Parts: sequence; structure tokens; C-alpha cells
Amino acid sequence: MNESTENQRATMRLKAGLPPGSVVFTGSRKVDDLIFDIILYSPKHCETLSPANWQEARKILDEHKAEKAWLNVTGLHDTQVIEEIGNYFSWHKLAIEDIVSVNQRAKLEDHDKHFYIVARMLRLMPNRKIDEEQLSIFLHKNTIVTFQEKPGDVFDSLRNRLIEGKGAIRGRNIDYCLYALLDSVVDQYFVIAESLGDQLEEIEQLVMYKPNSFDLAMLHQLRRELLKLRRAVYPMREVAGRMNNTDLAIFEEGTRFFLRDLHDHCVQVMDNIEIQRDIATGLMDVYMNTVSNRMNEIMKVLTIIATIFIPLTFIAGVYGMNFDNMPELHHPYGYHMVWAVMIAVAVVMLLWFRRKKWL
Amino acid sequence: MNESTENQRATMRLKAGLPPGSVVFTGSRKVDDLIFDIILYSPKHCETLSPANWQEARKILDEHKAEKAWLNVTGLHDTQVIEEIGNYFSWHKLAIEDIVSVNQRAKLEDHDKHFYIVARMLRLMPNRKIDEEQLSIFLHKNTIVTFQEKPGDVFDSLRNRLIEGKGAIRGRNIDYCLYALLDSVVDQYFVIAESLGDQLEEIEQLVMYKPNSFDLAMLHQLRRELLKLRRAVYPMREVAGRMNNTDLAIFEEGTRFFLRDLHDHCVQVMDNIEIQRDIATGLMDVYMNTVSNRMNEIMKVLTIIATIFIPLTFIAGVYGMNFDNMPELHHPYGYHMVWAVMIAVAVVMLLWFRRKKWL
Amino acid sequence: MNESTENQRATMRLKAGLPPGSVVFTGSRKVDDLIFDIILYSPKHCETLSPANWQEARKILDEHKAEKAWLNVTGLHDTQVIEEIGNYFSWHKLAIEDIVSVNQRAKLEDHDKHFYIVARMLRLMPNRKIDEEQLSIFLHKNTIVTFQEKPGDVFDSLRNRLIEGKGAIRGRNIDYCLYALLDSVVDQYFVIAESLGDQLEEIEQLVMYKPNSFDLAMLHQLRRELLKLRRAVYPMREVAGRMNNTDLAIFEEGTRFFLRDLHDHCVQVMDNIEIQRDIATGLMDVYMNTVSNRMNEIMKVLTIIATIFIPLTFIAGVYGMNFDNMPELHHPYGYHMVWAVMIAVAVVMLLWFRRKKWL
Amino acid sequence: MNESTENQRATMRLKAGLPPGSVVFTGSRKVDDLIFDIILYSPKHCETLSPANWQEARKILDEHKAEKAWLNVTGLHDTQVIEEIGNYFSWHKLAIEDIVSVNQRAKLEDHDKHFYIVARMLRLMPNRKIDEEQLSIFLHKNTIVTFQEKPGDVFDSLRNRLIEGKGAIRGRNIDYCLYALLDSVVDQYFVIAESLGDQLEEIEQLVMYKPNSFDLAMLHQLRRELLKLRRAVYPMREVAGRMNNTDLAIFEEGTRFFLRDLHDHCVQVMDNIEIQRDIATGLMDVYMNTVSNRMNEIMKVLTIIATIFIPLTFIAGVYGMNFDNMPELHHPYGYHMVWAVMIAVAVVMLLWFRRKKWL
Amino acid sequence: MNESTENQRATMRLKAGLPPGSVVFTGSRKVDDLIFDIILYSPKHCETLSPANWQEARKILDEHKAEKAWLNVTGLHDTQVIEEIGNYFSWHKLAIEDIVSVNQRAKLEDHDKHFYIVARMLRLMPNRKIDEEQLSIFLHKNTIVTFQEKPGDVFDSLRNRLIEGKGAIRGRNIDYCLYALLDSVVDQYFVIAESLGDQLEEIEQLVMYKPNSFDLAMLHQLRRELLKLRRAVYPMREVAGRMNNTDLAIFEEGTRFFLRDLHDHCVQVMDNIEIQRDIATGLMDVYMNTVSNRMNEIMKVLTIIATIFIPLTFIAGVYGMNFDNMPELHHPYGYHMVWAVMIAVAVVMLLWFRRKKWL
Repeated sequence: MNESTENQRATMRLKAGLPPGSVVFTGSRKVDDLIFDIILYSPKHCETLSPANWQEARKILDEHKAEKAWLNVTGLHDTQVIEEIGNYFSWHKLAIEDIVSVNQRAKLEDHDKHFYIVARMLRLMPNRKIDEEQLSIFLHKNTIVTFQEKPGDVFDSLRNRLIEGKGAIRGRNIDYCLYALLDSVVDQYFVIAESLGDQLEEIEQLVMYKPNSFDLAMLHQLRRELLKLRRAVYPMREVAGRMNNTDLAIFEEGTRFFLRDLHDHCVQVMDNIEIQRDIATGLMDVYMNTVSNRMNEIMKVLTIIATIFIPLTFIAGVYGMNFDNMPELHHPYGYHMVWAVMIAVAVVMLLWFRRKKWL
Repeated sequence: MNESTENQRATMRLKAGLPPGSVVFTGSRKVDDLIFDIILYSPKHCETLSPANWQEARKILDEHKAEKAWLNVTGLHDTQVIEEIGNYFSWHKLAIEDIVSVNQRAKLEDHDKHFYIVARMLRLMPNRKIDEEQLSIFLHKNTIVTFQEKPGDVFDSLRNRLIEGKGAIRGRNIDYCLYALLDSVVDQYFVIAESLGDQLEEIEQLVMYKPNSFDLAMLHQLRRELLKLRRAVYPMREVAGRMNNTDLAIFEEGTRFFLRDLHDHCVQVMDNIEIQRDIATGLMDVYMNTVSNRMNEIMKVLTIIATIFIPLTFIAGVYGMNFDNMPELHHPYGYHMVWAVMIAVAVVMLLWFRRKKWL
Repeated sequence: MNESTENQRATMRLKAGLPPGSVVFTGSRKVDDLIFDIILYSPKHCETLSPANWQEARKILDEHKAEKAWLNVTGLHDTQVIEEIGNYFSWHKLAIEDIVSVNQRAKLEDHDKHFYIVARMLRLMPNRKIDEEQLSIFLHKNTIVTFQEKPGDVFDSLRNRLIEGKGAIRGRNIDYCLYALLDSVVDQYFVIAESLGDQLEEIEQLVMYKPNSFDLAMLHQLRRELLKLRRAVYPMREVAGRMNNTDLAIFEEGTRFFLRDLHDHCVQVMDNIEIQRDIATGLMDVYMNTVSNRMNEIMKVLTIIATIFIPLTFIAGVYGMNFDNMPELHHPYGYHMVWAVMIAVAVVMLLWFRRKKWL
Repeated sequence: MNESTENQRATMRLKAGLPPGSVVFTGSRKVDDLIFDIILYSPKHCETLSPANWQEARKILDEHKAEKAWLNVTGLHDTQVIEEIGNYFSWHKLAIEDIVSVNQRAKLEDHDKHFYIVARMLRLMPNRKIDEEQLSIFLHKNTIVTFQEKPGDVFDSLRNRLIEGKGAIRGRNIDYCLYALLDSVVDQYFVIAESLGDQLEEIEQLVMYKPNSFDLAMLHQLRRELLKLRRAVYPMREVAGRMNNTDLAIFEEGTRFFLRDLHDHCVQVMDNIEIQRDIATGLMDVYMNTVSNRMNEIMKVLTIIATIFIPLTFIAGVYGMNFDNMPELHHPYGYHMVWAVMIAVAVVMLLWFRRKKWL
Repeated sequence: MNESTENQRATMRLKAGLPPGSVVFTGSRKVDDLIFDIILYSPKHCETLSPANWQEARKILDEHKAEKAWLNVTGLHDTQVIEEIGNYFSWHKLAIEDIVSVNQRAKLEDHDKHFYIVARMLRLMPNRKIDEEQLSIFLHKNTIVTFQEKPGDVFDSLRNRLIEGKGAIRGRNIDYCLYALLDSVVDQYFVIAESLGDQLEEIEQLVMYKPNSFDLAMLHQLRRELLKLRRAVYPMREVAGRMNNTDLAIFEEGTRFFLRDLHDHCVQVMDNIEIQRDIATGLMDVYMNTVSNRMNEIMKVLTIIATIFIPLTFIAGVYGMNFDNMPELHHPYGYHMVWAVMIAVAVVMLLWFRRKKWL
């Protein structure tokens, strides 16, 4: 979260004085130039193109108006080009502003001729860290345009299905492709929720059986990641719910059913998150209790040792005094009797501790 | 929870790239081959059949279209056969996918010609553990199809009632059979809630009267099981509520009343769960307090012993010094006076502790 | 809660396999035989009858159809008789099942020709314990039938008003009698809430002024009783609200106003409960703090004593050493100087503690 | 809360057996006789009368039916007179019962010809205590009747405005006078909320800068008072909201706007209360932490002193032994070398503490 | 918060007796005289005027009725002038009262001919403190009037856009100017939320890696500021939501879209606040745990040192006794054997601590 939010904040302050609709990139530049990918497809055919710049991409789109097209733009730093793209598709200027304001909540905006959807695209990195970026999707009658911050996304399998013609995707309207995109995003939420669940179970094992090697910062970190995931999923559920419930002309009847499934998935991830948060809170209690018990253990050792030896040391001290007139010192068995007394004191103490269940 | 969720996670990652509607089993294989059971019944007649495979089962169903039939399938690993079953009944492919995705929330889907219901089937095992599996139910005009993960379920008494013709079940429409299935599932929730209640009371007794033999992990475990039960009951209540409230053509008027009862039962289990969670939280406090008090007790013993003997040892130390000129040492009653001083100090200390209510 | 819930659980497990509508008593038998009481009344007249069994009671009811009648049945163990009663009045078999399932939430069921109402009847016993039993009420056009588990209820004053003709009750329709029954139940909730409030204040006094004689188990017990009361009141409020809001043909317009009052009372009790729960939670904090402070006090005494005497004992130890060459020992004022040093050390320590506000 | 609630409880138990509508005073008598005050006013004229009893008051009201009248009754113990008043105005008997049941929540009842409103009248006493009493208001077409428990209220300025003809109040309908009464009550809530806010800030200063002179009971007391205020404000907001939203024929259009303002004020007080509760909870944490830190400080001092001197005392002890054959004792610089060793040990310890940041 | 609230409280008490609509300034005077600023603008033209007093300002407004005008008034102490302004524009007297009651929640009031909006204007000061003042906005058909407490606001960039003719603002209706004002206010909420987020991360770093230099008061302070921000944002979101949802004739269709954006921004800030509150609570736990661990560490050191040396000191004490008959003392290797015993004891103790993982 750190890198992106720091940049975001710096730009935030800068941006707070600009008029609404100012297209200012609030993230950090992650690619050298914008990367354009176009997938043109129809039921029988699919073609992948990588135009070098917006002029070329525009030409391709103009030439293939009959085919369904998915234009993916990677990189958000070149706000000028993004404004050009926005003007080409006649998007609202506040929507264009939002593409490059990279800390949006997931949302769905209905602009009569097109829909604008924002989603948080999370990915599980090999080191178990969560990588977060903003995904903007514009859905037109025959075209989908997506914007992402950096190379690498969760859509590889979707691309393969398009290219290899697997599944129903090529034959259906473009709204199904939108669903497929969002489904890929939400599937990844599942993967992340499960990974966090694994980590939580590992932490649980540590807390239960090896509290010494447990570090509370791990649990705190996990709770932060759960918050991050939750922040992504909650508004996503609203988006799925709205697509599902309201009468949006652009969605075919058949797709409606898939949208309901999407909504169910979001609810399921949220369920998982809430349960994990509850367990994490419970673990906190268990750990705190372990710490208390360890303290009790330490105190007990100290108390037993001190309580036995302090009186004995006192007795020894008494007979180390140098008074002229100390009759015990001259008694032939004085020394042995003192030992007897000391052993008796120690034994009484030990029995008393045993009765108190401290031993 | 561990075994099933681990498998689930492994498959989850694998699945996250597949097209929607991919039938991938996310659980672990628990039977060698799918097991088929068919109960054919009409008001006057009831027959139990165990076809060896789907082809045989299909033949039976085709031949007895006039009778009400309940087909139960045990085992979900053979996704190919399950797809065949789904195609035979013309289920939506997302529903078929959900049968074998074994971490669904309870839900109700209305597919015009049939209903698809998912429920979490919990069973109380002899060792008080909770066994959880997914139950999928398809309700057609004259047929019910159920899928479960492994042999053993909560429907034995229902089967007996069908076979022996007890109760009204044979004479009523097939929707009543759906209700009877869900009622068996929810009745088991009750049994589990009560068992957890028993365990909580046992833990309460330990915390209150034998805190030494209490282990916080027990309480943590119980809270996890309560979460698990709650996760099953909450969506089940929604399902019962929806069946109860909305106008679903498939339900006879007479069944409606039973559905309301089902909903009431879910609410009652939830009530129980919430109260137990509240009590568990309260117990936590009581236990933490016991731990604190034990610590206080230990500290008090240490402090009393140390506070009495440390000054006495000092006095003994003083008269153990070897100065040439120490007049007290040569006084004939020096030694006795020192003893008097030491006893006085000890008595003053003890009185002071008594005034402070430490003794 | 213990006795009744244990029985309830045992029967629960037994019952979980029976068909819906099985009339199984889930409580423990509390009377030898069912006890029947009938009060027949009309504006000018009131008669109390105690038929020995259901046959007699039935005859009385058949003979006095013109008069308003309240039949009260005490004891639920004889399920066969209760089924007979139910069949006589043509109640739904699920309702009959609920009469003897003694762990129901308060609820209101509208069965066209009659209403079925369940309420939790709580009574404050002389030892401040709360006695709980289930009250089932069936409201017909001219008859009220009530079922309770054991002798003794909260209706004595209502009976007196009927017999002595006090208040408006004889002159009004039977629905007013239902209101009067529920009002008696809710009034008792008030009494209990107030008793718990008294106990909470006593505990508060203990925590604040005599923490030594306070036992956390008392507070835990009180919170459990608050939960129990809350569990009774919450659904009761829903029942009162539904009777108040919906158009139930059976209620006269004039009674509607009384029902609103009933609802207000429930809300008021709930308010009380919530405030008491808040205060109980706050008390917990106060007590925990008292425990911490006591620990601090103990540690402080130990530290002050130890910190003063440990250095002094060291000094005494030094001059107890037996080296040949220790010039201080032979100095004529060596002993006095050592005393001076030791007193100085002690005074410095004490001043330092005073500056630290430990003394 | 104590005095009034104790009386309330005693009567509660007594009352729990009476028929609904029994007029039983549940508070404690606070005046000798009921006090009657009548203010008669019209746009140009205002007159204040103090009839000695209800008969006189009744005569005045009968004679001045054309003028707007506000009758204020102080004292609730004489239930007979209050019933007479109620019958004169034809109030519902449950409403009359509520006047003298002095633990009502604020509420609004619409009785066609008149409204009945209950409010909790809180007053800030000079010693910062909150004085609470119940205020009942009956609003008729041309008359307002108010009941309060004891002399002294928050309406003095309202009376002055009526008498001196300040503001619009004389010229407006009687419903504006109701608003003015409630506005006075809510304004006082503000004053109390602010006073509690002041106290909270004082406590915050203590906790932060003088934790020694802070007593947790103060915070507990404050939280209780916040609960008390909240209990008064929450239902009051509902009352204001209902007056504002629903179409109550008795309210002029122009008054509606004032009612909205009343509602806003309630919301604002509630906002204040919630924030103060949050801060109070935060303070609790801060204080607990202060207590922990103080304990740490004490332990550290003890540990440093003990850890330095215990080894040194041991060394001194060794050379205090009386063995015949201890060569060190006879070495000419033995004593000095022991001192060197002891100083070295102490210095090493101190350095180690410094490295651990304990010094 | 302190300065303004203290004044507010003082006036509150004073005000609690005044009639509704009394215009009493509840803040503290922050400017000598009211400052007036008028910006007159039309699509092609923009003029800034600074009339010296209300008479001049009034004349300007009268002369330029055709142009869109934004009148900004700084300073609220001169209630007489503010009443004059209110009468000139025929505002409701409760609205005039609210302008100078400087502790209002954000709200929107629809007065047919004009709207009255209150917002909390927060500004981030260079020292990271949050400066809060009340902003009142009156929206007429062609005129906006704003009131603020003191010089300095968040509108500088909006003024520049008007003067320099940047953006669409000059060309649009006056309702867009209202949106632009609120957008500036909400943008500043973002900046503040991000600044608090930065501070929280700094505190997190401290707690995690330098717990010694962390002071809990910092976290408490941060939580208070989060509460303050939340108190401003929550009602603001309601205002934005109401402007967005309801059919307010004054808003052009085109502005509606911007209002939705405003609402989204409020929701986003609230999301941020809630997450930060969650993290802050988690940090509290982490810190408390750090404190516990430090205590454990201290206790462990004390226990190890004491437990090793106390028995050794006892042994030394024994052979410091002066009994005549102590054979060990005269053994030629007695001294060496005692050393051996003492070393053995110490080694055993150390090994035992190592086995307990304390070393």
C-alpha cells in the first residue's frame, strides 16, 4: 500500500485546488509509454493486435467497427493521450478524471450510451504480498475499453479463451465479456482470501504451540491486508448487486444470471473475510493470555526461590554476628541444629507451595 | 474445517483462470465411485432402488415419470457424470459448477422450471466434532435431486418415514419433500447448537471453579465452531425467509406454513448462537481476571516474605561487621536486644500487612 | 436455565429425526396430571371451574358457547391429551408441536380463525432467581386457551379482576383478555429488569467501595440473566409491534390503543436492559483497574523496602569480610561512619521515592 | 437516578398486578399540594393566574375558552385530582396512567382531538449534577396542559416571552407554544451535553498530565451520565421526527419548519454524545496504559537496584566466610582487589542497562 | 477544538433561554469588521469587488441583478448586519440564527425560493493541525451568499478559475458554482484524511520499531482528529446524497452528475476514516503487547539474577557463621569445595533457564 498511497497523497494535495474534471494522474508512473492491446473478435474469428500508439489503435478501431473489440490500455501517466481517447469515445470528463485518480472505490456509472465501471484489481504475488491497482472499464455497445496502471493482470486466461475460442464468450454479446473481466477480478479475491486464511492458520498454529516464535506484528499485518481486501470487495459487491438488480438495457437476459453468480461470489468472499477477522481477534486474546501466563510462570519461579532462601539467609546472618555473648555458637551441636532448622523451614515452604498448587 | 478447506484452496488457485461454468471439483474425493439412490413414491407406494451408475439411474427415472422420485447422488469427484446428469435435467451450467464447488453459502436460485438450493449439511460426530459437507438440491415438478460429498447424512429418519409411510409425506406434493429435507438439516443445527451450549457450560464450570485445568484454546476452539455454525445458519435463514415470503409457484399453499416454521427454527438457532457468543466473551473476561488475581496472590506472598526478612537480614549483617570498636557487641545482653529488635520489626510488619488486608 | 435446557437438549437429539408436527414434550414433567381451569365470563357474570380432566373441560366448553371462556392448562407432559385439545379446536399440527417444544421464541401466528401466540413467562422468585416457562395462547372468537408448564403464574391479579368484576375487562371482547394476559407478562419483565437493576447497583457499590468482597462471578451471572431477559423481551416486542401495526380483524379498534401501550412497555424494558449491559461493561473496566492498582500498590511496597535495604545489607556485608588488611575496621570511628553512610543512603532513597510520588 | 428509580421500583412491584389504566404514582412525593399555574394569552394580551386548586382552575378555563391557555400542574402524587383533570379533558385512561408513571420514554401519541407528548426534562444543577423529571404535555385545539413532578423547570424564559410579548409566540397558534416548550427542553439537553463535554476535557487533562490524581470512578460516573442523557435524547429525536414528518392536522404549516429545527438539534446533541462516548473509551485505554507504564517503571527500579547489589552482596558474603584456608584474605591487597572486582561488576551492569535503554 | 467550543459553550448557556430565531453569535470574534467580497460573473466577464460595508454591497447587488453574483461575508460577530442581510434576501429567521450558531452539523434546507446549506470547512494548517470553521451557503436563482468565520478559506483556486475563466464554471448556471464550492470543501477533507493517514503510518512505525519513543497520547490525539473529521464528513455525505437523489428544481440536469461525484468523494473519505480507525485500534493492541513484553523482559532479568545469586549468598552466609564446631571450616580444601558447589549451583540454574528458553 505504501508506495502507491504516498504518491497518491502528494498528488492529492496538489490536486485539491484544480477544477472538477482536471485529468491529473495521482499514481506513480510504472511504464515508459502507454501500451495498447486490441482483441477483435466475432463468433468465428479472433485477432490480437498491439498498435504502437493511440493513432494506430484509433485507426484499427475505426476500421473494425463491425467486430466486437476489447481495447486494453496499460499505464496512466500520459494524461493527454487518455483525454484524447476519452474524447474519441465521448466520455464524461469526470469519468476521464477518475481513470487516472488511482484511489477510487469500485463503482458503476450509467452514462446512457456507455457504462463506466471501476474495480480494484488485486493480485497475489509469489511472496504472498497483495499487489493492488485500479482497473477502469468502459462498456460500449460493441467495444470494451480497459485501463490499468501496470503490465500484468488477471486476464490471461480470459485472453486465451478468446483466442482459442473456448467457452461461450466469442458467441455472446460484449456485455458477457464485461462479466468475464469482473469474474476474473473477483476470482482473484477468492485466491487472496484463501491465502490470507492459510496465513491465519499458520499464525494460529504459532500462537497455540510456539508462542515464543510468534510476533504480534504478523497478526497486525494480516489484519491490515484483510482490511485492504475488504475495502476492495465491499463496493464490488454493490456494483455486482446493482448490475444484477436494476434494469440496465445493455445487459442481455442471459447474462443476468451470471451477474447474480458474481454477486454471490462477492458475498462469499466477504463472509470469509468477516470470519477471519473474528478469528484474528480471538487469536489476539489467546496470545495475550499466553503472555500473561508466561509472566505468571516467571513470577512463580522468582517467588519460590526467594521465599525459600531469604529466611535461610537471615538465619545464617544471625549466627554470623559477632556478639561476645552468643551461647548457641558455643554449643557443640549448635551448627547441626541450625542446619536442621534451615532444612525444616525449606521443607515447610515447599509443602506450602505444593498445597497452593504452585509446584 | 482444515482438510476440506485446504483442498478447496489448492483447487481455488487452479480454478481462478477457468471460464465461468467450468465444472471443477474443489473438495477432496471421499468415495470411490458415485453412489446413486432413488426413492420412488406415491401416496400408496414406496420403492428404494440403488442403481450402479448414472445410465441405470437414468433408465429408472425415465420409466417412472408418473411417480414422485428423489434421486440422491453421493460423491462429487466425477465431474463428467455430474455434467451428464445436469444436461439430462437441463440445469444451468453455473448451477452444475456450484454443485462441485464445495464452499458455497446456502442459497436459493429460481430457474423457472426448477429450483436450485444449496445448504451446508452439518452433523455432530460422536467425538463432538462437527462434520460439514455441501448439500445441493434440485427441485423439479415431480423429482428432487440431491448431491452430497460423502456417505452418511441427516436424512435417515426421512427415508424411514417415506418407506414406512409414516406422516403425511407420501400423500403431499414433492415440495413437501424439499421442506422435509431442509427441516432435517436445520434440526441438526439445533442439535449442534445444543452440544456447543453443553460444552460452553462445561468450560464455564472449569473457568469458575477449576481455572487451573482450563485451557484458553478450548474456548477459542468453541468460538470457531460457533462461527462455523453461524456461517451455515445465517444464509439458511435467508433461504427459508425467501421461500416463505415470495410467491414461488412451485410451493403449495399448505407447505407455506411449514416453511414459516423452518424460518422460525433458523431464527431460534441464531438466537442461541448469539447468546453463546456473548457468554463466551464474558467468560474470557472472567478468566483473564482469574489470571490477574493469581498473579496478585503470587506477588503478595513474595512481597510479604521479602519485606519482613530483608530488614532483619540487614540487622544481622550489621552485627556481623568486624569493626574493632563496636560497643554493642560487647554488651552482655547485646545479642538478646538485637533479637528483640528483630522480632519487633517483624511484628510491626505483620500488623501493617494485616491493616492493609494482605493477610 | 440449567434444568430446563438440559432436558430440552436431551429431547432435542431424540426429536431431530421425527417428522414435522410430531408432538414431543421437550421439557421436564412438573405436574402429575394436567390441571384444567376455566373462567367463564360475560359483562355481568363470572364463574370459575376446575374440571378434573379434558373430557369434563370439553363438556363445559360445549355447554357455555355463548359466554366468553378462558381455559388454562397447566402441565405439558401428556402430549396425547394436548393433541386431543388441539384437534377439538382444529389447530395446525405444527402449532400443537410448538406448545410442548418448550424453548420457543415469542411469536404470533395468524391462522385465519384463530391466533397462536407464544410468550416467555418470567417470574421473579423470592431468592431473586428468574423462573422461566413457556406460555402458549390460542385466541378464538370467544375463547382463549393458555398452556403453561407448571403451577404458579403472573395472572392472579387478572383472575381477581375477572372474578370481582374490577376494571373494564368483563365488558370488553375476548381480545382485551389476550391483551391483559400479555400485559401481565410484560409487567413482570419490568419487575425483573428493576430487580436486576438493583443487583447491578449493589455490585457497583461493591466494586467501587469494597473491591475485596466483590466476586467477578456475580457480574458474570448478572450478565447472563440480562441476556435471558433480553432473549424474552426482544421477540415479545416484535409480537406487540405486529399486533399493533397490522390489520388483524380479530382486534377491536379500542384494543389497538392498549396494544400500542404494550409495545411501548417492551421498548422501555429493552432500553433498561441495554443501559444495564452498558453499565455492567463499564463496571468490568473499573474492577480490572482496581485489580491493577492493587498490584501496583504491592509492587511499590516491595520495591521501596528492597531498594532501601539491599544496598545497606551490601555495605554491612563488605565490613563483615575477613581480609587481614582492612584499615577502616581499625579506625576508632569506622563503625560510626558506616552507620552514617547507611543512614545517608536510606535518606537519599526515601527522598528520591518522595520525588517520584511513591510515598 | 438513585432516589427516583428506587421509588419507582418499589411501586413497580406493587403495580405489576393492577389492571391497565390504574393511575398509580410511581415516583416520590415532592410537593405538599398540587400547584396550578395558568397563563392565558392572545396576540395582544397575557395574564398569569395561580388558582389554589383544580376547582378554581377549572372555573378559569371554562370562563376563558376563547383565549389560548397553558395550564401547568406541578406535583403528581394526588392521583385523584389528576384523574379528575383527565376526565374534564376526556383523555384516555392509559394516558392518565402514564402521567404519573414517572419512568416513561419520550413519546408522542395522537388521540384525534388532542396529542399526548412525554418528554424527559433534564436540568443542570449548580453542582453539575443532572436533575431529571418527567414532563407530560397535552395539546388541545386552544389549550396546553403540562404536568411536572416538582417546582422548577426550564420554561422561565418562555414564560417571560409570553408575559412581555417578546418574539412571535403570542401571535401564533397554540402548536407553536408546544414547540417552544419542547425547544426549551432540548436546549437544556445542549447545555448538559456541553457540561459533560467540559467534564470530559477536565478528566482528559487529568489522565494525560496528572494520572495520580485521577480516579476511574469519575470516568465511570461520566459515562453513566452520558447514558442517562442519551436515554432522554434518543426517543426525543423520534418524537421530533414524527411531528416533523407525518401529516398531523394540528400543526400549522409555518410551525413545521420549527419542528425540523427541533429535530436537527436532537441529532446534534446525539452526535455530541456519541463522540464523547468514543473519547471516553479512548481515555480508558490511555489511562490503563499509564497504569501499565507506572508498573513498568517500578519494576525497572527494583530490577536495577537488585541486579546490581545482589551479586555484590554475594561477593562480600564469600569473603565473610570463616574458612581457615582462604589465601585471598591474607593477600596485602586482597581487600582492594575485591573492591575493584565489585566496582567492575557494578559498572558492567550499569553499562548493560544503558544498552538496554533502561537508564 | 478547544477555543471555539469553549466560547460556544459559554454562549450556549446564555442562549438556552432565548426565543427560537434569536440571532446570537456562539463563536469568538475573529475579525474587526465584517469583510465583504463580491464576484460578479457572466460567461464572458468576471469582476471582483470589495465593498466596505453592507450598504455598498447591497447597492452593487441591486445594480447587477442580471449577472451571476457570489457574495462572501467573513466574520459573524456583527449579528445586526447579518440580520439586515437576511432580511434583504428574505431568509427564514431560523436560518439567520444558524449562520451565527457556529456548531451546526452539515445540512441542506429547501426554502422554496432558495437553499440553505451548512458545511464544516476544515483546513490543514502547516503544523498539521486541523482548522475548523462553519460555512453557510445560500443559493438563490442568480446569487450565492456565503458566510465564514474568519479570513482564509479553501476557495482560492475556485476564485482563480472564475477570474481567469478557466474550466466551464463561468458558462454554467449558479448551481454549478455551489457544487464547486462544496467540491473544494470535500477535496480538503481528502487532504486531511491523507495527512492523518501519514501520521498514522508514522505512529505505526514508531510502535513497531521504536516503542520507547512512542507516546500513547499521540494515538489518542489522532483518534480525536479522526472523530472530528468523521463528524464533518458524515452529514456532508447526507447533504450530497440528498442533492443527488431528490428532485430539486434548482439543479440543472448537467450538474446532477457532478453532485454524484461529490457524494462518491464523501463515501471515499469515510472509507478512509473507518479503515484508519480500525488500524488505530489494532495499533493499540500491538502497543499494549509491546508494553507487556517489556515487562516480561524486565521480570526475566530480575528473576535470573536473583535466582542464581540468592542461593549462592545463602551458602556464603552459612560459612560466615561463627559456630565453634564447624568442621568444614577447618578442612584444608573446604574453601575450594564451597566454590565448587557454588559454581555447580549457578551452572545448574543457567542450564535450567536455558531449557525454559529464558536465555
